[in-house]
Amino acid sequence: MTLNPADPAFADRLSGLLPEGVLRLPEPRYLEEPRGSFQGQAGVLALPQNAEQVSTLIREANAARVPVVPYGGGTGLVGGQVMPGGPPPLVISLERMAAIRAVHSLENVIIAEAGAILADVQSAAQAAGRLFPLSLAAEGSARIGGNLATNAGGVNVLRYGNARDLCLGLEAVLPTGEIWHGLSRLRKDNTGYDLRNLLIGAEGTLGVITAASLKLLPIPASQGTAVFTVTDPQAAIDLLALARDHAGEGVSAFELIHRQGLNFLAETLQQVRQPFAKAPEWCVLIELGLPRGLEAEETLAELFEAAEATGLVSDGVIAQSESQRQAMWSVREHIPLANKAIGSVSSHDISVPISEIPAFIERGREVVAGLGDFRINCFGHLGDGNLHYNVFPAQGRKREDYEALRGAVKEAVHDLVHSFGGSFSAEHGVGRMKTVDLERYGDPAKLAAMRAIKQALDPNGIMNPGAVLKTV
Amino acid sequence: MTLNPADPAFADRLSGLLPEGVLRLPEPRYLEEPRGSFQGQAGVLALPQNAEQVSTLIREANAARVPVVPYGGGTGLVGGQVMPGGPPPLVISLERMAAIRAVHSLENVIIAEAGAILADVQSAAQAAGRLFPLSLAAEGSARIGGNLATNAGGVNVLRYGNARDLCLGLEAVLPTGEIWHGLSRLRKDNTGYDLRNLLIGAEGTLGVITAASLKLLPIPASQGTAVFTVTDPQAAIDLLALARDHAGEGVSAFELIHRQGLNFLAETLQQVRQPFAKAPEWCVLIELGLPRGLEAEETLAELFEAAEATGLVSDGVIAQSESQRQAMWSVREHIPLANKAIGSVSSHDISVPISEIPAFIERGREVVAGLGDFRINCFGHLGDGNLHYNVFPAQGRKREDYEALRGAVKEAVHDLVHSFGGSFSAEHGVGRMKTVDLERYGDPAKLAAMRAIKQALDPNGIMNPGAVLKTV
Repeated sequence: MTLNPADPAFADRLSGLLPEGVLRLPEPRYLEEPRGSFQGQAGVLALPQNAEQVSTLIREANAARVPVVPYGGGTGLVGGQVMPGGPPPLVISLERMAAIRAVHSLENVIIAEAGAILADVQSAAQAAGRLFPLSLAAEGSARIGGNLATNAGGVNVLRYGNARDLCLGLEAVLPTGEIWHGLSRLRKDNTGYDLRNLLIGAEGTLGVITAASLKLLPIPASQGTAVFTVTDPQAAIDLLALARDHAGEGVSAFELIHRQGLNFLAETLQQVRQPFAKAPEWCVLIELGLPRGLEAEETLAELFEAAEATGLVSDGVIAQSESQRQAMWSVREHIPLANKAIGSVSSHDISVPISEIPAFIERGREVVAGLGDFRINCFGHLGDGNLHYNVFPAQGRKREDYEALRGAVKEAVHDLVHSFGGSFSAEHGVGRMKTVDLERYGDPAKLAAMRAIKQALDPNGIMNPGAVLKTV
Repeated sequence: MTLNPADPAFADRLSGLLPEGVLRLPEPRYLEEPRGSFQGQAGVLALPQNAEQVSTLIREANAARVPVVPYGGGTGLVGGQVMPGGPPPLVISLERMAAIRAVHSLENVIIAEAGAILADVQSAAQAAGRLFPLSLAAEGSARIGGNLATNAGGVNVLRYGNARDLCLGLEAVLPTGEIWHGLSRLRKDNTGYDLRNLLIGAEGTLGVITAASLKLLPIPASQGTAVFTVTDPQAAIDLLALARDHAGEGVSAFELIHRQGLNFLAETLQQVRQPFAKAPEWCVLIELGLPRGLEAEETLAELFEAAEATGLVSDGVIAQSESQRQAMWSVREHIPLANKAIGSVSSHDISVPISEIPAFIERGREVVAGLGDFRINCFGHLGDGNLHYNVFPAQGRKREDYEALRGAVKEAVHDLVHSFGGSFSAEHGVGRMKTVDLERYGDPAKLAAMRAIKQALDPNGIMNPGAVLKTV
């Protein structure tokens, strides 16, 4: 399939069909991504104001065989938002479609345009006395359309699921330019194939999401946060089970933290106050959100007592105020920044079945040690099996020393993850960074079905070429 | 596309490839469906024991262009499980693939084969101290593969979602005969298109589900059930919001019951004990499931007090024992049987946005009254917007008197539902009964995408022809 560049002739044709101001000269910020691994390009940048304008853009791009890159908040970590090679594409930024179209409190539904910043969706829910639970580090700049296109995860997946689980319906423009009007407010609707979940997680390769109907939830009456030290990952998992015995579905977050991360923090971000005087080898951050009649602090205290009695935990701090709560989260949230300051050889966003985590961590240590002298910072969303498994140079050495080993480390970690029935991309997606992994580890029947679906819905291959599926 | 019958030559070819006992002579029970609207046919019946045998069956059917009808528990209400016209198909019953392959308590995961009876999946979860919350009237005979293929709903959707929301992964045979090994135990896995949700709800038209990886949940520490009378549907909805203020996500079921249903019960099933001496016009059955530290009975009592204070409820009964609890559910669960005994002119499994329910019920009454002299029994899963809206002959008249009006009633009700942004099939699916409705009410862009996906994954059109999408 040959694609054509979004050249001046194409731009001219578009400008005759769209109001002034929709087409812009591409600025550098649309062509960069946070990791600096891919440098994008653009022939034309469009900032549409509604689904009809998106439809016009896609229809024309499809007719002219011009590649299209949908652009949300630009916070993706796998290069799905920038197209480094091939004919310069039409980049469509959804930033001017940022309205909260409606909040239906009684129905626990919010309708947001794709360009709405995640934090603004959270705030609109809060203002209506409701919770929109999707929460992740980039929430101040990530846009909900991108969150859905990548099926974003974050810290509350344990309780509330991924972006996918929070979406009731979509308005989207398909690769033909047709608008699918699917902004359903229904909880039950069994009328045909699930196009919604096909577009969610397709990373812009099957269409452009322009708006979404999202689920809201009750705000828990009482919230509490604690950090407990545990002897090892197995104790952390047993503690999770115990926490569920005590709080049922009220366990909202359960994050594993390793001493390596706390040491990196102490080394690079001294201003972040740490919960323990002496960093424990392993600790977990637990958050509970409980209904009326329960006090989360009390439940956490009972949990600690029960866990201490069985030897699962040895020390712990329960937040007594909102500022203490925020301080605990601050530790967790600054670990990625500390990692960045140290500079990893290779970082992995992986998941394994929860009960396999202890064995995976042990085997991982052996496998990585077999490749050279490294430090490992393994931390993250233990409660949903998603670990950020980052491999660093040994103390005193530089990441540059390890250039030759990077590929081998990545492959060894991903092979190990795969052997445990895990995923090489738990929450970040495939983008352009992991298309080779998808081919290596993906189920062949699933891959064949994916290619057939892509071909069926986007026969000209205009939508985000090179993302998810390698272009031949 | 011309399809060929599953004739003796085809059966012969299969028998050379499969162990003895897999192929059977079709029995009548595989060719009937509960409503008696469709009479099926079968050239060959197969009872495979594993995914490899299913793969052999599908591969051969695809090569020979023989239609395939997957068969679960046979409890579907829209004729998806029987093929009344065209060349006699290969019917594949999953009943011999009924194993619970594994229970991973620590992960809250159960792996069940497609032929496992829903109640057996629930029991296996219970035995492991966990809850599998999918619950519906046919759970004693429905099989989990069929529940997933139809994205079954039931009484706990409000809290736990549809079958779709409880599935982590699938093993399935695609229309080419390829086996997709997707029995993931992961909560987070963003590696490509969501094939799982495409097969869920496709009603066997895109492949055969052979096993599923399902989510388990904590069993609530305290459960409580009550029936409260409310003045009208608006009060019922306000009561739902109040119940959520009191119990957060602990509201597990919220069922609306109308006097008409209680009257039908009194008329046809006198043995079912009713909660009130005099049937109220509207009442709701509420179920709460709360974590440790809370007593559901107490919370229900507080809810009643608060609701009475604001005039939302006028009378109520809170179950004081398991037998009282079951008696309340018995009322709710016998209403469909009473309906059947009375004999409806037209029944509708519809949903509308929850806040639109009062207006819908009022307009519905006017619209139906405009067509003739009817009784309406409108009841069901108010908490998720799913009502069973059944229209009956006037007192003393017979359903046969209304033959000529049936089509007009159905169309008027579905048109009204559509005008409220609702669905003509909330939980039963499209099957063969509602393909015309799907064409009438379905979004054109979505329908075009569905046809393209069907053509891409099943180019010969062998999988459950005539279900969901009309065959031309």
